[in-house]
Amino acid sequence: MKKPIRVAVTGAAGNIGYALSFRLAAGDCYGPDQPIILQLVEIPQAMKSLDGLVMELADCAFPLLHGIETADNPDDGFKGANQIFLVGARPRSKGMERKDLLQANGTIFIAQGKAIEKGAASDVRVIVVGNPCNTNALILARNAPGLPEDRITAMTRLDQNRAVAQIASKTGAQTTDVEHLVVWGNHSPTMFADYFHATVKGKPVAGAADTAWLEKEFLTVVGQRGAAIIEARGQSSAASAASAAIDHMRTWWTGTAPGEWASMAVMSHGEYGQPEGIMYSFPLTIKDGKYEVVQGLTHNEFAQQKLRATADELVGEREMVKDMI
Amino acid sequence: MKKPIRVAVTGAAGNIGYALSFRLAAGDCYGPDQPIILQLVEIPQAMKSLDGLVMELADCAFPLLHGIETADNPDDGFKGANQIFLVGARPRSKGMERKDLLQANGTIFIAQGKAIEKGAASDVRVIVVGNPCNTNALILARNAPGLPEDRITAMTRLDQNRAVAQIASKTGAQTTDVEHLVVWGNHSPTMFADYFHATVKGKPVAGAADTAWLEKEFLTVVGQRGAAIIEARGQSSAASAASAAIDHMRTWWTGTAPGEWASMAVMSHGEYGQPEGIMYSFPLTIKDGKYEVVQGLTHNEFAQQKLRATADELVGEREMVKDMI
Repeated sequence: MKKPIRVAVTGAAGNIGYALSFRLAAGDCYGPDQPIILQLVEIPQAMKSLDGLVMELADCAFPLLHGIETADNPDDGFKGANQIFLVGARPRSKGMERKDLLQANGTIFIAQGKAIEKGAASDVRVIVVGNPCNTNALILARNAPGLPEDRITAMTRLDQNRAVAQIASKTGAQTTDVEHLVVWGNHSPTMFADYFHATVKGKPVAGAADTAWLEKEFLTVVGQRGAAIIEARGQSSAASAASAAIDHMRTWWTGTAPGEWASMAVMSHGEYGQPEGIMYSFPLTIKDGKYEVVQGLTHNEFAQQKLRATADELVGEREMVKDMI
Repeated sequence: MKKPIRVAVTGAAGNIGYALSFRLAAGDCYGPDQPIILQLVEIPQAMKSLDGLVMELADCAFPLLHGIETADNPDDGFKGANQIFLVGARPRSKGMERKDLLQANGTIFIAQGKAIEKGAASDVRVIVVGNPCNTNALILARNAPGLPEDRITAMTRLDQNRAVAQIASKTGAQTTDVEHLVVWGNHSPTMFADYFHATVKGKPVAGAADTAWLEKEFLTVVGQRGAAIIEARGQSSAASAASAAIDHMRTWWTGTAPGEWASMAVMSHGEYGQPEGIMYSFPLTIKDGKYEVVQGLTHNEFAQQKLRATADELVGEREMVKDMI
């Protein structure tokens, strides 16, 4: 049995955190021979509810769960953490402008960035799930300057998974038949689920599904999926977001399979002509815990416009938090 | 890749069903090479919420999830099912007597018993999770007379897991260090978490923890755990119940390891002097999908009283539903 790793989760008592914690403890992320110690972090008001989660996690007698610790602040919560899931974020309340939302979250992610830099393990890897996740991750990175910036990522895997599921459903295939379908840009309705390089059973998606459906309905369904789930469930996506976070971190942990691409929002260095210094989702390959942006893809005019529109949104978000980065 | 199996879940849109569905789809029950088709069953009023669950499950792009079907009735929902999780049950509402609760649930489980007998796969295995689960399972079995009665079980694994976790915590051990801790009788506060045959790191639990704690606090904490979780979370156990259901069915699917015992409520044939014809939790070993009650255990007077008290409760429950069985 391997040495346990420390896995921190913020917003642990919320709906995504609840779904995530049990799957982490069950071994769904790091495999059946990797024990973990969970470091569950919440705001002080949620600590009683968090106690309930701790009781339920204990009650599962998970063989791989070698410890559960709780904290009501990031300094304690991230101490020694190897893997960090930043799920907690300030949701948009009524009458709140986008700038207010970005600023309110900024305060959280400034403190968390400093705490990670100060106390996390030297091999720490971070996923930001809490929205607006790309810009939250940017604030985090700029407030942890001592941390290599490739340790901080934001989640677009839920968009990727949603896109894969739509293509599989449309073409009558299994999700495992769909490859190279990746998401560019911001985790928001502007994200671009790039079907131009995707294949289903080895053949181009562009040939397997008609163009009108791909350009309109497909992109709209994927972009608006969060709202559709709220409409059906009366609550926002929880277990599917948790599952995507696990996929993201598992892929980072194990690496991509040969030919596999993973979507993650990472610090842009101007790849594919996109602006530098924003957290932009690119197609990645990963090996030994290091990612590389897939090179050499070409985009037609339609795709180029999409790539630019989602970048413009991120540049606008960055502008709204410029005092924090 | 194996041929998919059909896994039905009732009460799928509820909190336990929600936690359960994603873990089933992730492969936590039947392993990483066994695809499944989920058959999600709800009452007609919950079908819209169920649609939201279906969307979220699809959005995970689970490699092992080869299909999702929904039904608002057991006849459609159990057709061809190999594995059935009966999670849905009528909760106790204010002013409801225990007899009313048993009767209200009885109506549900009569219909489900008939539907399973009529349409499930010939190798079907059933776990009843919905409470009062032992007597619900008895009603189910008596209304599916064509089904071998050893195909129907009720869940006491949550009590077992809770008991294991308490012992591990008390003795500073990991849960995997605790063996042969099993639960007898009813899934209710009368259940007996039998520590007399249990070991921690190979040594008797009775020597590793003091008797006063075992007789009083341990049994009380395990028996009252559900209420303690509600107090902390403001909601009843969901993910831990789902996890226990997965443990129960996984153990039935894969068999017990050498020396491992599993607690399940099964049809009593008078083993250990307990009444026949109630669904009573015994320690079991399992091989090739068939369980056997562990033989030859001895009980002191304290334990015998506990075994009898929980049996008496089950006999009382049976009396209240005698017109249904």
